[in-house]
Amino acid sequence: MSINTLVNAIRAKNNPTVAGLDARLEYIPSYIVEKNITVYGKTLQAAAESMWEFNKGLIDALYDIVPAIKPQAAYYELLGPDGARVLRDTVSYAHEKGMYVIADIKRNDIGATATAYAQAYLGESEVGGLSLPVYNCDSCTVNAYLGSDGINPFLTECKNSNRGIYVLVKTSNKSSGEFQNRDMEGKPLYVRMAEKVAKWGEELMTECGYSEVGAVVGATYPEEQKIVREIIPHGYFLVPGYGAQGATAKDIANAFNDDGLGAIVNSSRGIMCAWKKCDLDYQEAARQEAIRMRDDIVSAIR
Amino acid sequence: MSINTLVNAIRAKNNPTVAGLDARLEYIPSYIVEKNITVYGKTLQAAAESMWEFNKGLIDALYDIVPAIKPQAAYYELLGPDGARVLRDTVSYAHEKGMYVIADIKRNDIGATATAYAQAYLGESEVGGLSLPVYNCDSCTVNAYLGSDGINPFLTECKNSNRGIYVLVKTSNKSSGEFQNRDMEGKPLYVRMAEKVAKWGEELMTECGYSEVGAVVGATYPEEQKIVREIIPHGYFLVPGYGAQGATAKDIANAFNDDGLGAIVNSSRGIMCAWKKCDLDYQEAARQEAIRMRDDIVSAIR
Repeated sequence: MSINTLVNAIRAKNNPTVAGLDARLEYIPSYIVEKNITVYGKTLQAAAESMWEFNKGLIDALYDIVPAIKPQAAYYELLGPDGARVLRDTVSYAHEKGMYVIADIKRNDIGATATAYAQAYLGESEVGGLSLPVYNCDSCTVNAYLGSDGINPFLTECKNSNRGIYVLVKTSNKSSGEFQNRDMEGKPLYVRMAEKVAKWGEELMTECGYSEVGAVVGATYPEEQKIVREIIPHGYFLVPGYGAQGATAKDIANAFNDDGLGAIVNSSRGIMCAWKKCDLDYQEAARQEAIRMRDDIVSAIR
Repeated sequence: MSINTLVNAIRAKNNPTVAGLDARLEYIPSYIVEKNITVYGKTLQAAAESMWEFNKGLIDALYDIVPAIKPQAAYYELLGPDGARVLRDTVSYAHEKGMYVIADIKRNDIGATATAYAQAYLGESEVGGLSLPVYNCDSCTVNAYLGSDGINPFLTECKNSNRGIYVLVKTSNKSSGEFQNRDMEGKPLYVRMAEKVAKWGEELMTECGYSEVGAVVGATYPEEQKIVREIIPHGYFLVPGYGAQGATAKDIANAFNDDGLGAIVNSSRGIMCAWKKCDLDYQEAARQEAIRMRDDIVSAIR
C-alpha cells in the first residue's frame, strides 16, 4: 500500500491519526489474559494469544474510523517467536480491514543487512526462486545514524514495492536533544537529518504530492515541527507524543501543511488503555477515545 | 553471561574474534537448502530449517576455538516467525556449547519500549507473575540517536542480569561519516557519542577491568579506533569490517589496549562462506578460516 492510499484513507475518514498497537500484558483486560493462561499456562504463547485477541478486537473497533495501525516491534519481540507470529498476523488482519500499516521498528544497518530488513518488512523473501511475503507492512520507521548506506537499500525496496519509510529526525522524548539539537557545523543535527530526508524523498514522489519518504517528528517539540515542516514540505510526518507523552492537539498543528495533510498522529496507550478510565469494554472505550482524538486534532488543524 | 566470562574465554582460547551468524540462503550449501525444500516446500520454514542446520554446524565446528557468536537479527527477521525461532534456538545452542552471544539488533527506542527490547534480548518477559527468558542473549548492539532515554532502560537491564550492550559509535560503512564525522560543537559526533558511552559505562564496571557498556567501532577506520580507544579505555569494542569489508589485522591493532584485550573482531561472510573458496565442506572450511583469522589478528596485536 502506497502513501497515496494512506492519504486517500485519511481524507475519506477525515482522520489523520494512527492507532499504536503496542500491548504489554497489563494493557489487556485481565479476563482475556486469564483465559489464555488457563489454556496455555503461564507461557509466552498465552501472552501472545492474548495480544492477538486484543489486537483483533481493537482493529474491529477502529477500522472504519482510523486509517492506520502502528505496531511497535518491541512488544512483539518481547514474546519471542509467538510474538513474531502475532505481528505477522496483525498486519494481515489490518490489511483485510483496509488499514495501512506502519511497522515501528527503527531499524538501521548497512548494505546487505539493510536489504534484509527492507525485504523482511516491506518486500519479500526468496526461497528456491519463489518470492514470499514476510511481515508485509506498508511502511516502517528507520534510524539514519549510519548515513545513506543504511537508507539506500530501503529506498530501493520502496521503489520496488510502493512502500514507504519514516526516518527518525526529532524524537518525542526528553533527552532527544542530547544529540539531535546540538549544533553540527552551523545547524542542529535534526536539521541536518531533515535535509537528508528531503533529499532521499525526491526520487519517491507520488501523485498525492507526498513522497514515500517521511520523517518521525515528536509532537512534544512544536518549534522543531515547524522548522522540519519547512525543510521537508513533501514528506509525511509520523508524530508520536500526543496524549500519554503530554502533547496537545495545538502542539501538533505545526506538523501539518496548509492542505490539512502531511502528518499522521499516533496514539498508543491513550487508545489501548482507554478502558481503564471508564466503565466501557476495551473495544468501545478505544473507539470513543479514537473519535475524541480525531475531533481534537481535526479541530486544531483546520 | 557477563563481559567477565567473555574476557576469560578470549584469554583461554587466545582468540579475540566473534563469528557472525548472518546466513542468507545463498551462503548455505545447496544440499542443505534442497533437502529442506524437499521436506517443507519452497517456504520460509524450509529456509529457516536450513539456517538452523547451518548455524548448528558452524557452532559445532567453531565452539572450542571461537569464544562468541554474533547473530545479525535482520537475517532471522527475513524468515518471519520461523526465523525468530531459529534465532532463539541458535542462542540456546551456542550457550550449551559455552559461547557468549552478541545479538546484533541495533535497537533504539525510549522508555517502556526500550525496556521491552532490553527484556526481550537480555532479560525476561513476565506472564502471570512468572519470569520467562525470551531470546536470552548475553549482550546486544544499540543505537543512541535518541539520547539517554534510549539507553538507560538497557543499563537497568544490564545491571539486573549482568549483561552488556555495544553502542554504535563509528560504524564500518563508507557513508558513516555523513553524520558521525561531522563537527558537533567542536568535536565530531562520533567523539561526542564515545564520551557518552564512557559515561554510561561507569556504573557497569566489572572485575575484569572492563565495563558491560562497549562500543561498535568499525575496523575500516583505524584513526577513529585510536581516538575512541582513548575516550573509552574500559569499554569493549565490537569491531566489524574485517575481511569482507576490506580491513586488515593491522587496521584493527588500534582497537586493542596494551593488555591485548578490549576488542572483539567480527567475521561473518569470511567464515560462513569459506567453503565457497575451497574444496572443504562448510564446517571444516569455517574452522580453518576462523583459525587463520585468529592467528592473523593475534599476530597484529601482540
